[in-house]
Amino acid sequence: MIRAARDAPDGTGPAARRGLLLRDVGESGVIEHLRRKYGGTARPGELAIGDDAAVVRIPGGRGVLSTDLLVEGTHFSSDYFLPEETGWRALSANLSDLAAMGAVPVCYLVALAAPPATPVAKVDAIFRGMAAAAAPSGIRLMGGDTCRGDRLTLCLTVVGAVGRGGPVSRRGARPGDLLYVTGSPGWSRLGLALLRGGRPSKASGWRREAMRAHLRPEARWREGKEAARCGAVAAMIDVSDGILTDLSHLLERDGLGAVLAEESFPVSRSFRTASAALGIDPLAAFLGGGEDYELLMAVRPGRRGGFLRAARAFPSGATAIGAVTKAPGIRVRRADGSWIEGAGLPSGFDHFPSREHPVR
Amino acid sequence: MIRAARDAPDGTGPAARRGLLLRDVGESGVIEHLRRKYGGTARPGELAIGDDAAVVRIPGGRGVLSTDLLVEGTHFSSDYFLPEETGWRALSANLSDLAAMGAVPVCYLVALAAPPATPVAKVDAIFRGMAAAAAPSGIRLMGGDTCRGDRLTLCLTVVGAVGRGGPVSRRGARPGDLLYVTGSPGWSRLGLALLRGGRPSKASGWRREAMRAHLRPEARWREGKEAARCGAVAAMIDVSDGILTDLSHLLERDGLGAVLAEESFPVSRSFRTASAALGIDPLAAFLGGGEDYELLMAVRPGRRGGFLRAARAFPSGATAIGAVTKAPGIRVRRADGSWIEGAGLPSGFDHFPSREHPVR
Repeated sequence: MIRAARDAPDGTGPAARRGLLLRDVGESGVIEHLRRKYGGTARPGELAIGDDAAVVRIPGGRGVLSTDLLVEGTHFSSDYFLPEETGWRALSANLSDLAAMGAVPVCYLVALAAPPATPVAKVDAIFRGMAAAAAPSGIRLMGGDTCRGDRLTLCLTVVGAVGRGGPVSRRGARPGDLLYVTGSPGWSRLGLALLRGGRPSKASGWRREAMRAHLRPEARWREGKEAARCGAVAAMIDVSDGILTDLSHLLERDGLGAVLAEESFPVSRSFRTASAALGIDPLAAFLGGGEDYELLMAVRPGRRGGFLRAARAFPSGATAIGAVTKAPGIRVRRADGSWIEGAGLPSGFDHFPSREHPVR
Repeated sequence: MIRAARDAPDGTGPAARRGLLLRDVGESGVIEHLRRKYGGTARPGELAIGDDAAVVRIPGGRGVLSTDLLVEGTHFSSDYFLPEETGWRALSANLSDLAAMGAVPVCYLVALAAPPATPVAKVDAIFRGMAAAAAPSGIRLMGGDTCRGDRLTLCLTVVGAVGRGGPVSRRGARPGDLLYVTGSPGWSRLGLALLRGGRPSKASGWRREAMRAHLRPEARWREGKEAARCGAVAAMIDVSDGILTDLSHLLERDGLGAVLAEESFPVSRSFRTASAALGIDPLAAFLGGGEDYELLMAVRPGRRGGFLRAARAFPSGATAIGAVTKAPGIRVRRADGSWIEGAGLPSGFDHFPSREHPVR
């Protein structure tokens, strides 16, 4: 756990502005700095950063828990991510896991490994980015750990409470359910392609939208909570690995399939312009691009009215893109009436690419 | 979150015995293997590994949360830790944080980064070690994450529930409180010294005890829970950073001090033999050695009887080693009647040693 020392080295508050390194302020110094600036406040019966463990109230008595490990060089690169963006993305990715369960965000813990020569300002910016992504949902930083490591590594754990009508798991879809997706998946993939070509110093139009989607994605915690509450959503998942990969996770254990219709996809003119400029098939970006953190929902057709009323409150909106089928497998009807399926579909990303199951 | 694929590559069950590497089985293969062998079972209203997040019941509605990041080369070394021991130690260290709050262990999450050329057998052994350390307390593996990284990195998060009479924080000690410690702190430090000289192939006597303390420390979750329940323990901490460092954490925010008496320390003849053989001052090993995961408790003198009755059920036992004083600072009365204090005391370990506050 983060342990805050009372006697932090003098001046750790403005350490970030003084060009100090982690080894200059020591472990207790950096923890005290982070606790003061970003630490959450304990409510009655709770304990915040500073003890062996945090104590946090979880309304309803069921915790929703997710953890994610991010390694510099594998999950993010300082080449085109600012430290604040790294923090933002990390928190959003975890918040998205809570959103996908329809959970109410409660608190997060951050374990950090860093080389002793890491600037305090860099660590501060990562935590600032997390705090900025956390603020709208009210999720609080309640604990963590810092240690030495030769690569900057972040492990985030988020805790939520089961919201009204929740949890909504990946299972429960039935043939005939309508598939809705929030926002406009695929922009993050376009943003990645853009950034790989070198980060633009100024961006407007589609470049700006693509960069924002990749660098500052927004978790759909409001949408997830409302989706659970309205009672119409039978199964839900976030599309962090891309629509097709995550849709297959939604269907596979129930042995179901889906039909998607390209003409219904929320793919804007701007999205097509961006895809063309970046030399990417817009359908592949939409269906196969990951790290969007949009939500994919299976909605009971008989409760569509209730869902649409709830969806009016979704900041991201929601679009019907297809339906669940009894026949396994995913088929996509293209705008020209042709069908793609199986090996013809774009695919996701595997952290340990298997020789038996090559992916990308 | 750990996401289990239904169609895991064929034969991942015995993968560990076939000399396979992570890249041979892929991310979904290794997750499915770990979930099947070590994954916890969901109770009614819960969700285990396989969704966006786990859902876990937390009796009483207050979660006790702690997270720890361990990097190979910094926190553990394959030179003298077997992978199973690495897992055991990691789980025990986290369980100890719950113990120090008097919490009831509920579940744990494991995020793992590893090079694709890591043997599946090594990862399996780490999880086997965690499962073995977890078993007596009933704490269940309910989620996690796996990813690529060029160094083996583990991030454990443990979740507990506030037990009867809990939580017991680090604050609350008062002058006159008696200081009790469980077990025999210092053995882990001796074990470290022994192992640094090369791991003995066979060990007996003090060598065996020292090695076990360092390689397979036991978290005092039973003791912590009973300590909270008896109502006599005003403040508690685990001595993972050594008695002196952690005692100072227990006292510092209340501006208190302590007097310890060497003659009362649970330092056995065998401990002295080991210290002499390893060229370590036994007092320094006892007071300054870390990674023991024993508990240090401040017991109200008026409730000593109730505490001693509760302590009869402690598998580790408990020993009074001193008392809390109004005057700040820690003073140790040596067996010869002399006193040591301040800079004369052994010290702990700082992950980012500060230039201003050099530690070791």
